Amino acid sequence: MNLPSLDSIETPAALVDVDRLELNLQKAAAYVRDHGLRWRPHTKTHKVPALAARQLEAGAAGVTVATPREAEVMSAVAEDVLLAYSPVGASKLARLMALPRRVRLSVALDSHEALAGLREAARASGRTVGVLVELEMGMRRVGLPSPEGAVALARDASESEGLDYQGVMFYPGHIRMPLKEQGPALAEVSRRLGTFLEALEAAGLKPGLVSGGSTPTLWRSHEVVGMNEIRPGITPFFDRASLWMGVCGAEEVAYSVLATVVSTAVSGQAVIDAGSKALAKEELPVGGYGVLGDRPEVEVRALSEEHGMLDLSRTTWRPRVGERVRVVPNHVCVSVNLQDELWAVRGEQVMGRWEVMGRGRGPV
Amino acid sequence: MNLPSLDSIETPAALVDVDRLELNLQKAAAYVRDHGLRWRPHTKTHKVPALAARQLEAGAAGVTVATPREAEVMSAVAEDVLLAYSPVGASKLARLMALPRRVRLSVALDSHEALAGLREAARASGRTVGVLVELEMGMRRVGLPSPEGAVALARDASESEGLDYQGVMFYPGHIRMPLKEQGPALAEVSRRLGTFLEALEAAGLKPGLVSGGSTPTLWRSHEVVGMNEIRPGITPFFDRASLWMGVCGAEEVAYSVLATVVSTAVSGQAVIDAGSKALAKEELPVGGYGVLGDRPEVEVRALSEEHGMLDLSRTTWRPRVGERVRVVPNHVCVSVNLQDELWAVRGEQVMGRWEVMGRGRGPV
Repeated sequence: MNLPSLDSIETPAALVDVDRLELNLQKAAAYVRDHGLRWRPHTKTHKVPALAARQLEAGAAGVTVATPREAEVMSAVAEDVLLAYSPVGASKLARLMALPRRVRLSVALDSHEALAGLREAARASGRTVGVLVELEMGMRRVGLPSPEGAVALARDASESEGLDYQGVMFYPGHIRMPLKEQGPALAEVSRRLGTFLEALEAAGLKPGLVSGGSTPTLWRSHEVVGMNEIRPGITPFFDRASLWMGVCGAEEVAYSVLATVVSTAVSGQAVIDAGSKALAKEELPVGGYGVLGDRPEVEVRALSEEHGMLDLSRTTWRPRVGERVRVVPNHVCVSVNLQDELWAVRGEQVMGRWEVMGRGRGPV
Repeated sequence: MNLPSLDSIETPAALVDVDRLELNLQKAAAYVRDHGLRWRPHTKTHKVPALAARQLEAGAAGVTVATPREAEVMSAVAEDVLLAYSPVGASKLARLMALPRRVRLSVALDSHEALAGLREAARASGRTVGVLVELEMGMRRVGLPSPEGAVALARDASESEGLDYQGVMFYPGHIRMPLKEQGPALAEVSRRLGTFLEALEAAGLKPGLVSGGSTPTLWRSHEVVGMNEIRPGITPFFDRASLWMGVCGAEEVAYSVLATVVSTAVSGQAVIDAGSKALAKEELPVGGYGVLGDRPEVEVRALSEEHGMLDLSRTTWRPRVGERVRVVPNHVCVSVNLQDELWAVRGEQVMGRWEVMGRGRGPV
């Protein structure tokens, strides 16, 4: 492949530092090894099969996906695919059942309706689909809030032809705070999870798999009693939210958006050609939508669709029109979802190009 | 083309009501006709050449675009293309110069650096490019804040071989308030614009084109003294922000995202399969990220990537898992940018499918 020089790549463009990526993969792999956790990274973050393949090589047991398209794309490299979302509706179910037979597919759900649809689809296609019963752990988004509800759904799954009840899943997305402050919230998750596990065991439905965790809580996953699998998505790349929570250091952030300064006409700021259609609008308690990788005192103060406003109030740096910068966005997953491609870089050298194949909704 | 039934379309999916679309086009066309305004609609909203063609048929003089890709895509149907953003960098300039020769290309910019790059590219390619000098009108994003600066750049443009100084452009994006409250802000824009126009005229650089306006101020565009062109983007579709500002009524919103209820496990809410990767996160002073088209009392209270949380606190409606809803997002442009395609519908009937061709960054 004929690779362009970094200078010639049109902005905005997404860059991935391959050395940092590799270190991040190894660090996550070592953590799960040390703590005896199963690792099924969420590939919604990168949406690139080649990166999922690297995670599998590094020790991942399978991959997690968010959509039928991601399941299709990742099936090219993974034998074990977890759709961590209720597949509701004929089209989604049909696409899942049409995945290659070598793929062990499992699905998370929290309703008898979703279970009935999946059972019907599995039966019709003659394939066996794993089921994880989703539990509510404090985020109040999806998941069954009561042990009784979880037992009833687990029983329904375990008695369903074509379905394989494998265990439970949860996502503690409400724990979005600095790593050091998470102790009480994690203890509460352990306590709450315990009541579910107890009820399931008492009903003869002890879950083999207890899949949980998040990127914010990544390095404290071992504190959640009973959890034996984690599904972090952001770890290969990290982002400004991870930085803010202390999940990574500045030298570990592998993802950035290369942008060009296009206007300095209004004093006190510089405007770049990366806006909400490249960085994505995602709020953080610290304010702003991103930060320059090599100038952390310069924040992206505001975003419109094609413009990012760099706040120059805390720097003496005055960029000229045409100068390029690398921006670390608040939330990498939604920024990647706006890219056609990711450029693998080592310093100023372009090492490769990955198409964001899992982006979009249609069949591959 | 073999069109699917609406029921069989996988969610989330973007729908466009073709009857409302047509009425919206006619209403905008009648307004600009009545007020003698040139109309160059911003196609970043829909990114679909067939829709730009409809706008041109309805009376648009040309189209506005945000990126080289949009310029390429829209060149298939438009003879007059305005890139309303400074093109900085060799790649963008090369793509613009490679547009079909029949296209009259113009560009907005606010710096001598951007002008120099454009002049060089125009000279090298042997094409003439129109230039609009961008003015700052209170939004403090881009644009020259002083009449002296505008005169200097207009002079530079008018004396540049290969460039055709055509006038000035501005975007009063700071006027985001209900239509009825905009009077004082519009008067201030008129006053400020007057000082620029006076200075340019005094310097012998009277602008032929004074291009301004926005969707929030759309129906009051004629109050801006001296403005002779508008470039609204959102008018064919409208959105929740337009509703909130009174720019349109509920029966005029043509765009919605079809979504499926996937979880009702947590009380007080229903979770749909349209999250920030389908609706986009964009805040409004009224809170929430969207509203159901036919149940305005039901708001999308929160978004995660693949989930939208419908707030059921102000309704007795209790949807079941599998039920479908149509969501009007806060900001249609960023939602369209997340779609592969738009489905044209009339009631429950699918009338057509438009690929969102202008999405992404790469060459067509």
